[in-house]
Amino acid sequence: MSTAPQVESTTYQPPSWEDILAAHARIAPRIHRTPVLTSRSLDAIAGARLFFKCDNLQKTGSFKIRGASNAILSLSEAEAARGIVTQSSGNHGAAVACAAAWRGVPAWIVMPKNSSAVKIKAIEAYGGKIVFCEPKVSSRQEVCDRVQAETGAHLVHPYNDDRIIAGQATAAKELLEDIGDLDAVFAPVSGGGLLSGTCLGAKGLRPGVRIFGCEPERADDAYRSLTTGTLQSLESSDTIADGLRASLAPRTFAILRRHVDRVLLVSEEEIISTARLVWERMKIIIEPSSAVAIAPLLKPGVVASLNLPPRADGSAPKLGIIFSGGNVDLSTLPWQAA
Amino acid sequence: MSTAPQVESTTYQPPSWEDILAAHARIAPRIHRTPVLTSRSLDAIAGARLFFKCDNLQKTGSFKIRGASNAILSLSEAEAARGIVTQSSGNHGAAVACAAAWRGVPAWIVMPKNSSAVKIKAIEAYGGKIVFCEPKVSSRQEVCDRVQAETGAHLVHPYNDDRIIAGQATAAKELLEDIGDLDAVFAPVSGGGLLSGTCLGAKGLRPGVRIFGCEPERADDAYRSLTTGTLQSLESSDTIADGLRASLAPRTFAILRRHVDRVLLVSEEEIISTARLVWERMKIIIEPSSAVAIAPLLKPGVVASLNLPPRADGSAPKLGIIFSGGNVDLSTLPWQAA
Repeated sequence: MSTAPQVESTTYQPPSWEDILAAHARIAPRIHRTPVLTSRSLDAIAGARLFFKCDNLQKTGSFKIRGASNAILSLSEAEAARGIVTQSSGNHGAAVACAAAWRGVPAWIVMPKNSSAVKIKAIEAYGGKIVFCEPKVSSRQEVCDRVQAETGAHLVHPYNDDRIIAGQATAAKELLEDIGDLDAVFAPVSGGGLLSGTCLGAKGLRPGVRIFGCEPERADDAYRSLTTGTLQSLESSDTIADGLRASLAPRTFAILRRHVDRVLLVSEEEIISTARLVWERMKIIIEPSSAVAIAPLLKPGVVASLNLPPRADGSAPKLGIIFSGGNVDLSTLPWQAA
Repeated sequence: MSTAPQVESTTYQPPSWEDILAAHARIAPRIHRTPVLTSRSLDAIAGARLFFKCDNLQKTGSFKIRGASNAILSLSEAEAARGIVTQSSGNHGAAVACAAAWRGVPAWIVMPKNSSAVKIKAIEAYGGKIVFCEPKVSSRQEVCDRVQAETGAHLVHPYNDDRIIAGQATAAKELLEDIGDLDAVFAPVSGGGLLSGTCLGAKGLRPGVRIFGCEPERADDAYRSLTTGTLQSLESSDTIADGLRASLAPRTFAILRRHVDRVLLVSEEEIISTARLVWERMKIIIEPSSAVAIAPLLKPGVVASLNLPPRADGSAPKLGIIFSGGNVDLSTLPWQAA
């Protein structure tokens, strides 16, 4: 089940605080400082004070532009000159296309030939050159290797890359800069780039803050990896949270093992009903993957079960939630699908 | 066509800057300081730098809570004691119900018996007591008068009320506090409470700023009133922008005549396509009435036709847009309706 590790978790040194500061300085002029929103009605359901870091409102519609732009803007002229290549049918692909355009170099995005028209259009809108592959992991890798060999493009992996992790860390860093006394932070977990970055970005400013990952039951590799202590992969991942279908990688697993308290699982029904509730109450568009990060907290008893240390003044816990993205096909909403 | 004036526009004194400061101090602890968002892709379409004041993210889902809470929180104990009454099937009704609950007094909301289930539910959720009337203006007024007589409740009109106008002014005041050098501000116009407040709130901080109203072609009474110089009413108002079906009142007309440059009209098709574009690009939920405020600026040549004074540095104009609300029935979206 386990993937061959490319880094030893005992010796791996994750991005440092200085790396994160450098990433933030590099990308801040280009990205949105996304707002932190609140909702009394969701607070009442959770029995907590919730602070939502809205990277669904980020450029390209997701946090992915943070890591992609950090990686691409930090390349030397020689490294960047022949362009960028990555494999992603979703938000990372759009982010790489956008950041490559900022850098003025081409981007080849390898995506399965059965990708949705909406996703293809988004990547093309940022100027990405789409290269189709068969819809299986081996073909993706093959085609990606071939493009790299033919073009000399620089590979930017979606999450098993320290530059990506340092970039994603800036979302939690901004959240803690705005709301300094959070008791815990919650982020969705897929390949683990966002959750790893959340650990480093949040604990860099508040070492005692607790970190929780949130994951669909139908794509529970992070839950199983952290429970068993060995890196697990997914047999299948047919969740509606289409941003959360990847598996942890060696770097992200190493960071999560050190810093994550627990992974909380949610059902498909909970993801869909939570997405609709957030749209209704907060008037923002979140994709199902974002709903995964708040869905556990809306279930009776879950916040109490986290065993957070009581606050000195006895007030309700202050919890940060990272909304990862807002890219949804507006023709058919999640709750309208058959 | 013209309504009998209740105030003389030559002698009427609109709310002062001190009134607006007092309103803001009164309501700020209760309402959201809503974010000002930007979108490069919409900037590119408009040929301008756009700054969106997002009162679709305001409590109760619209700016209406600003005026309603200012009116209700400024009542004496004796005035408030017997509750509040208003007539509104929409956002003002929800706002009055919410602000009355903050004040701890009952609110009677007179609404047509054919109002949508979604709107009834929203008002009930804030604790409002719904009183149904026939779906015509005379019945609304009759029922409202009867409730007032029976209960002794205090009437809070949706817009022909200086406390309401002063409250709505706080949205533009916050926008100008955040983005001080706007060349012009755009707001939708219905009864004129928001647009009147926008004039006073924006010009209080930047006297030279230009103010434009935006209105559906199918509910063009403000356009006709300002063009003819006499208060016009609507024969019908079957626009999808359901927040913009009211007509100007004497107080709001008096303020708009003094301060508004022009009213820009948009078609139903432009309202719907603009709403969808904003959802897609900005990942926020705006109701059709909000889309009316940006739709004119996305049409070729419109920004240039406004004859804004050129900026000293030759850069593109900086335009503020007030998104008034985000209350939409998520079962069937505007572009999905038959």
